[in-house]
Amino acid sequence: MKELQDRILREGKNLGGGILKVDSLINHQVDPLLMDHCGVELARRFAKTGASRILTAEISGIAPALMTALHLGIPVVYARKSRPITMPDTVYLTIAPSHTKGRMVDLIVSPEYLKPNEKVLIIDDFLASGATIMGLVRLAQTAGATVVGVGTLIEKTFEGGRGLLEAIGLPVESLAAIRSMEDGQILFDE
Amino acid sequence: MKELQDRILREGKNLGGGILKVDSLINHQVDPLLMDHCGVELARRFAKTGASRILTAEISGIAPALMTALHLGIPVVYARKSRPITMPDTVYLTIAPSHTKGRMVDLIVSPEYLKPNEKVLIIDDFLASGATIMGLVRLAQTAGATVVGVGTLIEKTFEGGRGLLEAIGLPVESLAAIRSMEDGQILFDE
Repeated sequence: MKELQDRILREGKNLGGGILKVDSLINHQVDPLLMDHCGVELARRFAKTGASRILTAEISGIAPALMTALHLGIPVVYARKSRPITMPDTVYLTIAPSHTKGRMVDLIVSPEYLKPNEKVLIIDDFLASGATIMGLVRLAQTAGATVVGVGTLIEKTFEGGRGLLEAIGLPVESLAAIRSMEDGQILFDE
Repeated sequence: MKELQDRILREGKNLGGGILKVDSLINHQVDPLLMDHCGVELARRFAKTGASRILTAEISGIAPALMTALHLGIPVVYARKSRPITMPDTVYLTIAPSHTKGRMVDLIVSPEYLKPNEKVLIIDDFLASGATIMGLVRLAQTAGATVVGVGTLIEKTFEGGRGLLEAIGLPVESLAAIRSMEDGQILFDE
């Protein structure tokens, strides 16, 4: 999606070590119009999956998931990283490594909002190694739901997450696929 | 706003101790159409403030803030509760008590996205004691910005947060004002 790629080139910062700072667009400040356009595009790409629910992870997945859900007209559930007091005693929980925190984090979903026989579309801000998204896949599968696809704003193709997801038969869509961040550059797949 | 009040009456759960569970609408599952309608209404109520930016706190403030920002056509910044590696060394930080965590949490904003002379509209999911929102007010003031208003989805008027905010001259709008949660009920202000 050209609009997103242009914004990444203009405002993104390659901090080295494969870390892309897009805090002016997605991860701290959010541009709601850009996010709406991304939601329209992700909704278009997954329109035929019959998804009944979007699953994402707090925190940065919420904005793109919400906008995609708006345009598909389905609810979104965000996996929590700690169990709030409003959750039932028994929950779905998995652990996944966090890039930005450098440790394992919990991903928790209440069985109230993730049911068997549902078709779940996973949306997140980044697809890198795929570890967080594989955690969301496990949560959906544990609930007895079927994952119908994975959509992300930005993919770092050099980290291999797509292979992991495609190997289990999941269609993967990303709006900006970065193939290299070497030497301070940001190079997109064409 | 009748639509939100009706949904709270239908789906909200009074867990006692002043805790309202709205995990099917706002705090775990999010209904994007309802959130969009809330964003339209908050944008309408604050249209004349000339706000240049919305400030909220992760996690549950993101959805209503994003939808309000969409309809005002301005960016949103969410205060982080931990400092990610993409943030500069020097940040604005304040602490505020967390209802759901039962301890103090950090609220952190990068000076990159909160500038002097800006007009800041604060949006959050709940207004209860006002402690989190007062923390956001302090962050905006520390940045040299002016807070032009505070909008929330749900207000618990019996916790007194509005008085705190109005005492410093801030206009406060809430879409569903709950005056009592005694005896397992949910009673709205009319």
